[in-house]
Order: sequence, then C-alpha cells, then structure tokens
Amino acid sequence: MARVIKTKVEIEGRVHEETVVVEGDEPAAWEEGREYSVVGKPANRVDGRERVTGAARYTYDVNLPGMLHAAVLRSPHAHARVLSIDTSEAERLPGVRAVVTRDEADIDWYGDSGKLFDSTMRFIGDDVAAVAADDLDIAHDALKLIKVEYEVLPAVLSIEEAAKPGALEIHPRGNIIQHNGHNGELYSRGSVEKGFKSAEVIVEGTYRTSTQMHNSLETHGSVAMWEGEELTIWESTQYIFGVRERVARALNMPLSKVRVICEYMGGGFGSKGSTFKQAVIAALLARIARRPVKLMLDRREENTLVGNRGETVQKYRIGATRDGLITAIDLEAMTGVGIYATWAASVAGPAQDLYKCANVRTLTLGVRTNMGSQAAFRAPGYVEGMFGLESAIDELCEKLGMDPVDFRRKNHSDVDHSSGQNYSSKHLLACYDRSLELIGLGSGAALPVRGSLPSNGPWRRGMGLASQTWGGGGGPPAHALVRINPDGTVEVHCGMQDIGTGTKTALSQIAAEELGVPLDSIRFRLGDTQKAPFGPASWGSITTPSVGPAVRMAAEDARKQLLEIASFFMETPASSLQLVDGWVTTEGRPEGRKPLTEILDEIGDYMVTGKGYRGPNPTEPIRTWGAQIAEVEVNIETGQVRVLKIAAVHDVGRVINPKGLASQFYGGILQGMGFGLTEERKVDVRTGQVLNASLDEYKVPTIADTPIMLVEAIDKADTLANHIGSKGSGEPPIIPTAAAIANAVYNATGARVKELPMTPRRVLAALGELRDRQEGITSN
Amino acid sequence: MARVIKTKVEIEGRVHEETVVVEGDEPAAWEEGREYSVVGKPANRVDGRERVTGAARYTYDVNLPGMLHAAVLRSPHAHARVLSIDTSEAERLPGVRAVVTRDEADIDWYGDSGKLFDSTMRFIGDDVAAVAADDLDIAHDALKLIKVEYEVLPAVLSIEEAAKPGALEIHPRGNIIQHNGHNGELYSRGSVEKGFKSAEVIVEGTYRTSTQMHNSLETHGSVAMWEGEELTIWESTQYIFGVRERVARALNMPLSKVRVICEYMGGGFGSKGSTFKQAVIAALLARIARRPVKLMLDRREENTLVGNRGETVQKYRIGATRDGLITAIDLEAMTGVGIYATWAASVAGPAQDLYKCANVRTLTLGVRTNMGSQAAFRAPGYVEGMFGLESAIDELCEKLGMDPVDFRRKNHSDVDHSSGQNYSSKHLLACYDRSLELIGLGSGAALPVRGSLPSNGPWRRGMGLASQTWGGGGGPPAHALVRINPDGTVEVHCGMQDIGTGTKTALSQIAAEELGVPLDSIRFRLGDTQKAPFGPASWGSITTPSVGPAVRMAAEDARKQLLEIASFFMETPASSLQLVDGWVTTEGRPEGRKPLTEILDEIGDYMVTGKGYRGPNPTEPIRTWGAQIAEVEVNIETGQVRVLKIAAVHDVGRVINPKGLASQFYGGILQGMGFGLTEERKVDVRTGQVLNASLDEYKVPTIADTPIMLVEAIDKADTLANHIGSKGSGEPPIIPTAAAIANAVYNATGARVKELPMTPRRVLAALGELRDRQEGITSN
Repeated sequence: MARVIKTKVEIEGRVHEETVVVEGDEPAAWEEGREYSVVGKPANRVDGRERVTGAARYTYDVNLPGMLHAAVLRSPHAHARVLSIDTSEAERLPGVRAVVTRDEADIDWYGDSGKLFDSTMRFIGDDVAAVAADDLDIAHDALKLIKVEYEVLPAVLSIEEAAKPGALEIHPRGNIIQHNGHNGELYSRGSVEKGFKSAEVIVEGTYRTSTQMHNSLETHGSVAMWEGEELTIWESTQYIFGVRERVARALNMPLSKVRVICEYMGGGFGSKGSTFKQAVIAALLARIARRPVKLMLDRREENTLVGNRGETVQKYRIGATRDGLITAIDLEAMTGVGIYATWAASVAGPAQDLYKCANVRTLTLGVRTNMGSQAAFRAPGYVEGMFGLESAIDELCEKLGMDPVDFRRKNHSDVDHSSGQNYSSKHLLACYDRSLELIGLGSGAALPVRGSLPSNGPWRRGMGLASQTWGGGGGPPAHALVRINPDGTVEVHCGMQDIGTGTKTALSQIAAEELGVPLDSIRFRLGDTQKAPFGPASWGSITTPSVGPAVRMAAEDARKQLLEIASFFMETPASSLQLVDGWVTTEGRPEGRKPLTEILDEIGDYMVTGKGYRGPNPTEPIRTWGAQIAEVEVNIETGQVRVLKIAAVHDVGRVINPKGLASQFYGGILQGMGFGLTEERKVDVRTGQVLNASLDEYKVPTIADTPIMLVEAIDKADTLANHIGSKGSGEPPIIPTAAAIANAVYNATGARVKELPMTPRRVLAALGELRDRQEGITSN
Repeated sequence: MARVIKTKVEIEGRVHEETVVVEGDEPAAWEEGREYSVVGKPANRVDGRERVTGAARYTYDVNLPGMLHAAVLRSPHAHARVLSIDTSEAERLPGVRAVVTRDEADIDWYGDSGKLFDSTMRFIGDDVAAVAADDLDIAHDALKLIKVEYEVLPAVLSIEEAAKPGALEIHPRGNIIQHNGHNGELYSRGSVEKGFKSAEVIVEGTYRTSTQMHNSLETHGSVAMWEGEELTIWESTQYIFGVRERVARALNMPLSKVRVICEYMGGGFGSKGSTFKQAVIAALLARIARRPVKLMLDRREENTLVGNRGETVQKYRIGATRDGLITAIDLEAMTGVGIYATWAASVAGPAQDLYKCANVRTLTLGVRTNMGSQAAFRAPGYVEGMFGLESAIDELCEKLGMDPVDFRRKNHSDVDHSSGQNYSSKHLLACYDRSLELIGLGSGAALPVRGSLPSNGPWRRGMGLASQTWGGGGGPPAHALVRINPDGTVEVHCGMQDIGTGTKTALSQIAAEELGVPLDSIRFRLGDTQKAPFGPASWGSITTPSVGPAVRMAAEDARKQLLEIASFFMETPASSLQLVDGWVTTEGRPEGRKPLTEILDEIGDYMVTGKGYRGPNPTEPIRTWGAQIAEVEVNIETGQVRVLKIAAVHDVGRVINPKGLASQFYGGILQGMGFGLTEERKVDVRTGQVLNASLDEYKVPTIADTPIMLVEAIDKADTLANHIGSKGSGEPPIIPTAAAIANAVYNATGARVKELPMTPRRVLAALGELRDRQEGITSN
C-alpha cells in the first residue's frame, strides 16, 4: 500500500520539500556497537583495478564508429550583439559534417534569459556556433572560417561596479539576484541592534575570497548518439537523471527516449551538477550529421564556461559579552555569480548555523557580471563564509583574551536556531577535543598563545583552528534494486553516479553487509538512466545518506526473500535463519548451515529482486560537524606560508568505509589549502578575459604542497537521520581548512590576512600593515 | 512474504519442473468480453521504424573502435584426430592480433564429450583454431597459414548405418541417445497389442522427412568486449541469460561480470536457443588481443555448424474400428541428431497427444552421425511427426471411407491422456469448422472426395487437412519491471529478447492496457542481461504466456501505486480512481479527472517502479490447437506441386496483437511449405560435406511461392492457463502445413508421397508407383 509523505531535504545549504511514496516498512536502524562484517571496515575501491588499468570508460574514452568531433565557436567579447553569422565557408571545408547556429537551433536555455545560441553574447566564451568534423583539427579550422559580425557592447566586469545603483543592466533579470522581489537574500532572527547593545566587545572586519576554479581532472564533455528516435548521451556529469531531463526538454523529447550514461567520472566538485550546453549541441550535430558526435571541453573552456566558486566580499560585525558569549552577528556579503547563475551560494550559512546566538542578521547579494557563471563548488558558500566567520571569531577571541577552543565550547548549541529543534546528532565538541589530541596538544588543551611556538630564522610557527558545519543529511528520492544471480553474485542497480568519491564502494559494502555475502560478490551498477531506477545527483554530500538506505532496504528485501526460500528447502522457519558470509545458517545449529548457492540451485533461473527506496527524513535538522587545526610556518621575509600539519576531525555519522572517508578528508583539505593559499582566477579587467585558465598558470596544490594530514571521524551512528546512521562526507573536510590556516598564520605572526588566497604578496602586505600599526602604536 | 511453489512447465514437448517464488497476489484474469483499449487491437510493430530504417542495431551491426574480425579454422574431415597444429606462420602475418587453439584454451564444451577445440574432429566444420585480425580477409589468409596434421578416421554419415548393432562408435556416449539407460525413448499407455486386436482396420506406413536448415536471415555471431574483468557479449541469440550462463561457465567467471546484449535479432527458429562456441572464442581472442572481436558465421557455417531439423524415419501402425474409433497407435522413429546433440526432438508428440486413443506406444531413437548437430527448429519433432501421423490417419480415413474431418471429430478428446485431466482449454473442433469455412467449404462440410475437384490439363486439384497440437503454455520463471518517468512515459524492463516475432509489441500492448496509458507511451527494454531481471529464452512459443503475465503484474503494481498517489493529491479513495488513456478518472465524476502527468509533477523525481513475475501454472495441461486445410494443384506430368491456398485456424488463447499473430501464421505456413516441398540438406555421402549450404543452392520458399493464406485465431481467453489468457503462437502454424499439403496432393492425385520434401521427382515416383499398382490391380 503506497502512501505519500512530504519531507524536508537540505541540499547545498537550501531546504527543499520532497514527496516520498512509502511502501512497506523501512528497516530498523543499524544498531550502534553491533559487530559488522563489512560496514565500518576499510575497503579498497571496488573499481580500483578498472580505474588504474585504464579499463574504466570515462566520457573522454567513449569512441564510437564513425564518431565526429565537435568544437564550438565562442564569443571573443564579454558583451556583444551578434549581427550576422556566415557559416558557408566552414561548411565547404572537407571533413566538416555538420554546422549548427541559432538559425538551425532556436532553443531556450536559460529560461527567458538566454538561448542555446543567443543573439546577445554576455561573456567571453558564450556560444555562437558549433561544428562537427572528422577530427578536432578540422573542426577548429572550420571555426576560423565562420564569419561573425558583432556589435560590441559595454561590459560590466566587477561585482562592485555591477552592484552600484544605476549600473548598466547586463542581464534581463537585473544585475543582482532577487529573492521575494528584493535585491539579495535577507535572513534575520532576534534583533542584531539589541544584540550589539548588550555586547561588551565588538569586532568588525571585511573578508574577501577570490574566484576558485574547479579544475576537475576530467573536463566537461558529451558524446551523443542517435539510434532512430532514441538518443544516448555519455556525459561527464554528477546527475545523469538531471541531464536526461534537461536534454529531453531542450529537444522536446519524451524522457523514455533519452538515455544518459556516466559510469566513470573524473571529478566534478559541483560544477557537473547542472547540465551545460555541450550535450544538446552534440545531439543536434549528431542528428544533422547522422553520426555520433563527441564534444569535450578543453581546459580553457572548462575554466571559463562551466562554473567557479565566485569571489566574495564579507563584512562581519560580531558582538560578545566580556565573558565570551556571542550576542550578535551581522553579515553583509556579496558574491560574484557570473552572468547566468540564478542563485548565489550560501555564504551566510556559517553565520546562521555555527554558533548559539539569538541575534543574527545576514544579507547576501548575488551579483552578476559579464563573466562565466558560478556553479556549486564543494560546500558552496560555506567554505567562503567560514573563512570570514572563523577569522572574525578568532579576532574576537584575541580581543577577549580567550582561548579560541574555550570560546567555541562556550557558544556551542545542540539546538538548531531556525527550527528550535535539537539536531539529529551533533558531536562538534568531540571534534574539537579529538583534533587537539591529534595535533599533539591533548584533549581539552588550549591552543598555543600567539607567537609562542618556536621560530626558525624568518620562519614563524603557529596553529589555528576553525569549525565546520554543513548539511549532508540527504533524503529522498533515491531508489535501488538488488538482483541475486543464480551463482550467488549480486548486482545492485541505482541510477546515481560515482563521481570519483568512492560511493560505489561504500554502497557495495552496505549491500554486502545487509545481504550477508562477501563484498566481492557485489557488482554495483550505476551511471545509466536506462539500467536503473532514479538516483539523485551527486552533490550536497547526500549520496551515502540518500542512496545508502535505499540500497540497504533493497538488500534487506532480497535477503528476506532468500531466507523465506531457504526456509522452504531447509524446512526451518525463516525467522530462525540468517545469511552470513554467503551461508544460510540456522540459529544454534551450526552444522545445519547451507551455502546460499545451494539454495539458489534449487530455484534455478528464478531471480530474486529486492527493491528499496529512501524514506522520509525525520523532522529533526540533520547536520555534519567538524574541526580542523592547522599548524603552519610563515616566512616573514618572503610572505611564504607552509602548511606543516592539519588535524581534521569530522562528525559525519556512521563511517561505512574508513579508507574512502580518509580520501575524502585528504582531498577536501588539499582543495581547501588551494583555496586558502594559491588558487585565484585572474581576469584582464579591460576585456574580461581569464588570464590563467590553464593548469600551468592556475595553481592547484600538488603533492609537494601536501602537509601531514591527521584525519579522523567521530564514528557515531546518527540513527535518527536514517537507518544506516551515516551522514555525508564529501564537502565537510574542505570547509574549515582555509580558515584554520588563516588563523594559524595570525597565530604565527600576529598579522591577519583578510583576503584569500594568502599569497606571499598578501601575507607581506598584512605583515607590513601590522608593522605600521605597531610602529604607529609605539610612535604614539 | 515469499513462498516457494513447484510447478510444471512444458517447453518444446518436454515437461520441466520449475520453482516459483510467490510474493503477493497475481492479478485476476482478464475477463472475456470486456472492452479492451489496446489488447486485441491490431498494432504496428513498436520498433518497426528502427527495423526498416536500419537504426536497429543487430549483432552484425555492432562495430566498436579497434574491433578485430575473427574467423575459425574448421575440420575438413568428418572424423579425424588432430596430431599437431602449427600457428607460427599465421601469427607472423601482419594484421593478425590473436590466435587461439586447444593449447591456449583447454575448455570443456560438450560436458565430458568434447572440448571447445577438441583433439578429435567429429564432423566437417569442427573447430580447430581461431584467428582475430584487423580485417576478415587477413583472418582468412591467416587460417590458410595454420598447419594442421590430421589422422583421418572412418566416419559414419547415415543414421541407418549409425544405428546398426556393432556400428563404429563415433561419440563417447554411443551412437544412440540413451534414456534411463536404454537406447531411445519409449512411451507407452494401455496396450497396443490389445488395441490392434480390437482393430478392424489397420494402416501401416513408413514416412520420412529430410534435414531442414534454419536459414535465419541473420547468421549466428558474437562481438566480445572486455572492460577490465568484465565481459560484454553482443550475441544473436534467443536466450541472453543462457548465453551469460554458458560463457561464464566456460570462462570460469562470476555471472555478475558477464553481460549479454541482443536488442535486435534476425530470426533464430530455435537454432539460437543454445549457445554455440563463437561467443567464447570471440571472448578468448579479445582477451588475448586486448581489443573487441567480432565473430559472425557466414552462411555456409550457419548451415553446417549451428543446427538443423534432423531427418526422420517414422514407422506408423494405426488401428481403428470400422466406425472410425482409433484403437491403437504404434510408432517407431529414428531422428538424425548429428554429432553432439544430447536430445532428440519429440517426433512422437503428435502420436501421443492428438487423438483419443487408449493404446499408444512410441519408441524414438536419436541417432548420432558425423554431421553437424541438430538444434531445436520451430516445433521440433511435431512438424515431422505430424506429417507422419496425419498422413497415416488420412490413409486410414481412405480405407474406412470416412471424411477426414468427421474422423477427427470422432477421435477428439478434451482429456489429456498422460495426466487424465481436462486441458485448460481446447477449441480444436472450432478450428476444424472455421478452417472449412475459410477454405470455402462451409462449417461442418466434408472435404472433397479424392479427385473430385476440377482438373486443368495435367494439373490435378486437391484439398487436404491436418491438425495441430503443441504446448505453448509457458510458465515461470519470468520477471518484469515497469518504471514510470516523470513525464508519464513508461519503460518496461525484461531480460528477454524479441527474435523478430514482435513480442516487444504484444508485451507493450499488455503494459499499456494494464496501466491505462496510450501504447506510444511505452518503451519496452529487452535484450540486455544487465538492464533487466530474468526473462526466459524465446523458444517453445512461451514468450507471451510466460512474460506477458509478469509484465501485466508489474504494470498493475505500478498502476496501483499511481492511483494511491493520485488518491492523496485528489483526495479521493484510490479504489474509486482509474487510469484511462493517461488520465486519472474518478468514478461518476468525469469533470474531476486529472492528467497522469499532473500527478507525476506532484511527486517530482520520485519514480514509481512496479515489479511483476510469472506465477505458477495450474495443474491442468495447457496446449495450443489448430487445423490447416491446403488446396493444391499437382502437375502429374512434371510432378510439380503448387499450393494455391491455405486456411489456417489456431487456438492460441487470447489474441494480444492480431496483426503480429497473422505474421506468425504467415511465416509458419511458408516455412512449413518449405519443409514440405523444397527444403532438403544434401550431403556428399562419401565425405559428409554439405552440398547446398548456401541460399542459392538451398531452396527456401520465396514470395513467388506464397499462396493465398487465410489465417485466423480462435480468440478465446484461456483464463485457467494464466491471467492474460494467452497461449503461445510462434510454433503452432508450422506444424500441420506439410501434412495438409501431402494430404492435398493425395486428394488431388491418389498418390501418397511418404517422403518430404515432396520434390517433383518424389511426386513423380509416387505417381509411378500408383500407376504400377493400379496396373498391377487391373492385370490381376
């Protein structure tokens, strides 16, 4: 009997209402403390061999007979009108098989704000025309033969300029993203005015972060193939069902005739959560040419077209009592969202959620410019916002003369301010304690006083801490099927994708555990909209908590059926049978056990199929928590910052695969280091051209930059959140890293760097300011 | 709650026990006489467009990047020992990428009776070695460079010789297939001795049929591709799960790592029900070469290696009372099964099942020779056996001076002799009546007396009738899933295959009917072991009755869920809601209806999945029935037989798609005509070489041979058989055709041709014998 239930799901800092159709009972929660066979044990990637041997087929590896290669002609102007396009010469070039422009494809892409090939170009890289040819060189040659007449328009390239009253409007919906008819998004609880009145100490500061580019190892790209009226798209995506929907809508096709495949994926970090134009362009070209078409972005396109973490300017004002209780937090922030984004990342999330504070006001503006649009980037908003908040808190502690950890303990809350409810679980205090232990200070210890760690010539040493909060509770919808083969091997089907995070492995462990079979019996099938029921996007750290329970429920369903079948042949009630490590065992009669394969032999070709779905969330808010302590050295002569060590402890509920989780932590920390120290998009302010769109110009951390990373999870099941007890772990580890490093730099030098990345130039400037101030003070 | 039930399933004349796991209730049977929207209405092939435009990808059309082409070196001797193989020169040929012989692959293939590459060659075409090369020409050139030393052994080429006591043993298990330790298969009920004692009239005769070759439009073939440890096989097969099992076993792989795909298939007629060597050979070559390999058989290989309908010799003796009641049937038959077959077709089926007769004895011998093995061929055994039986019955009628239809009505039975139970349904008498009407004689009429139809010069006209019986009830296991997309389109998943018969269309109709959506909303996905749960082999006319109920049950499950969901949003009890043509309607409130898509919008990405399986069969025996009347002209000077008209009426339960069913009838009749008149494998009796293995030498009927075909089904639901009421229809129409033609030839000329095909030579010989006999009689 199916019933409909509405439930709330938080994804990337925003709460959605989802509808679940409930059939039958979900399994009871996995108990804490029970002995598990597979879950919680470190497991190698189930597809590690395929990945390292090259057998894994990424979108880039898809090659089809007769396949053409496509390239896109892009606007060289940040703002321009296309007056005419002449493709005739390009079409005559031998080897060119299809050309498409706005004349062949008049397709809405950005709602009412822009077409697939628009007549107005709104950033450098906007799509003018596309060509498919026998090889990529011919395609590029053909692009050069397309004659386009532009009327160049004035462009707006900085968020400050775009946000000014009376600024040139560069987008049909205005330069500032609207919420409920107002510029920006206002959040308020209590009264900040009252809060500041009762404050005894107030800090104020403006913090800035730069535009970070995702730089996933695999660029965005598509291969499109038509078979009659059916279209198959191979796409490097975090959301195969999203691509299916978007492509079907653009091409006006029924969903049942579009298939999207992404079996292996080389990272997305959020940028591949939405569908970009290349899938539709490839499909259009393939339809014209009647041959498959591959359209992969190159690194420059990747870094200019398909998203970034937009720059921010965050003005914080925080008040507290003398004994260290926060009385008010006020934040005004601007985020650069590029041209076509319809939402801005939740920079204000940390200010709203991290500390117990009755009076909070945040106003965040998403500001458009004639630049490539932002996209979700691993914990969008929270990474930026946490840097600002935790820097300001650190300044507040300094002003109060309080230990930063003590201060945080004091302002800790088990209650969620927005809902007034207790969190489903919160082990943040344990994260502080354990990170202090890991960094070598000892649980309950204070952080070293500024400047107290030994220096080494010009190298000053310091430690800094920052906290983490984030959603990651997941929720419906997600479906899974479990199929038992006659030889006892198991195939799990779910229409999700493993974007490189190792969810395939963790979900295989969940299936193996619930079924009572060895891990290597499981083949987890994902990344194909035609093979499996709906799976959610791989974003918002939702995969394990959303899909895991669906997989477990499907496995439980299959296991129950297997035991009922075994009951018939073993003449024992199903209730006294168990599946353990591939054997059906009888309670108290170890000699009566039978291999599962023997039972399966009895039923021949009959194939047991278990079905599961993700049930509704509890009403309690679900969040992940964590703390990181960075130990750094700063060269006060060169401004260079070296990260020596990072201790990271996060509360992400039950750990399914400690090995996979550690990888997430390592990756998050490194990406956070890049954000904090080296990564910064550089733009030619006259033209809007990105100057460092390649990987030799743009500096992501390398193995040489890697510090000692001491990572650990508070492995406590959140049984309220869902019946596997896990929360998501993909985004949490990146959130506090840059903030912890900034606080450590301050701890080492006394200089507060308020703009990321903390390049040597900025560190030296902060040191200079400090010196000036100190000299000013002494000269007073 | 899953329960286990054992049930009997008849496939190709043999009864198997199957185990079903029952969960929940199957739907109630579709009522007779209700108004159906989609079921029972003629529908065009749902994939007709793909098939005629070339978009449909058959195995032959699978081309993969870097794909190699393979060819097999085959034994030129009918019996020989391989002393040595030297492939060194072949390996050196540029473009050769892999060579495989028994040295590289020591794999059991025929149980203990033969290997993939055996050291003993047992027929011309047996596999010696295989080569994969850049193209097929190079592969063939390489084969010529392989040096093989043979020790030629004496061969046994005729079944008469092979069956002789003391004959040379050519197979490890003997020359005659054993049943329960005896030569051949003995069936007996009552006492034929007693039966013949009480007989007043006895006929005796020996009937022979020749070896018929399947000649499916698409030959057998495979493409193998490895991705890491996973193997994908595209195979032109009637049984994807069978290929998966066989390949996994041969290569010692878990089932979960082998995927078999056959989305479109160009006919099999039984020959593609079992797995031949090419899939494994292609997989081995692909593993060595690390590239995909295609191995398609050519027409000659097709006609010598992968099956045929073996020749038969049938000695019938039938007794009856003067008033036309059969008292005894005795049959001794031999079937040529080639070298490796482990079973012989059920030539005795008609003798056992067609008529009410208490005393029946049949002994059938499957005899091995050094020739290519037989395979199931559309109603194996019954086509051959029906020719013998119905010819003998016709002779009996002649002797009794009874009208053949009257005689058959008299010996009709509603009770199955073996089980003593009534058939689930039997409308054979209606088939006789309706076929008499269709041929223009009128229901209840007698057939024209021999020689009574007007002749035209040397052309003599006659009519003959024959009956049909066959299983076709299907049964478990079969599974299906129905998935509802957010836009209301539907995907049905089942791991079966449409071998060209149009089951995809019929099953789509079943899903559309049960869901209450238009037929074009349905996409039926089949032919992929990885996309769908288990579906049975496409053989034994079981597909519609086996899979149809599973599809309906899955659709019902999805419909119920949809209505329960609709109930929530429409605030109306689900029990008073219906799904009609894509609308959710409220009983008695037509204004309150809502499009299904509106309900789906409410649940967003939540995807309704319905699950269904084929439940157990009833204990009643399930059979299909039919009658055909042929009208022919025989040229008594040239011996040529022209079929003018065939009226065919079959009882196959409820008709799902009348258009598809008619195609099955047309095809069956034509193939039956080929068997009766032109198709005959010719063998060089000294060497065992097949002399007419190509389509220009071997005569299948063409459009020029096509008679007027008046086809009809008794469209009565068999609600006992399963809840859709359908029985299978693929094989029934071929069964009586040759027998009806033979009886018509007799009716036209008085000459009884006792050997098929009735070539002009054989017809002339029979006419000559008749003349001799008549002259003999007059000279007496």
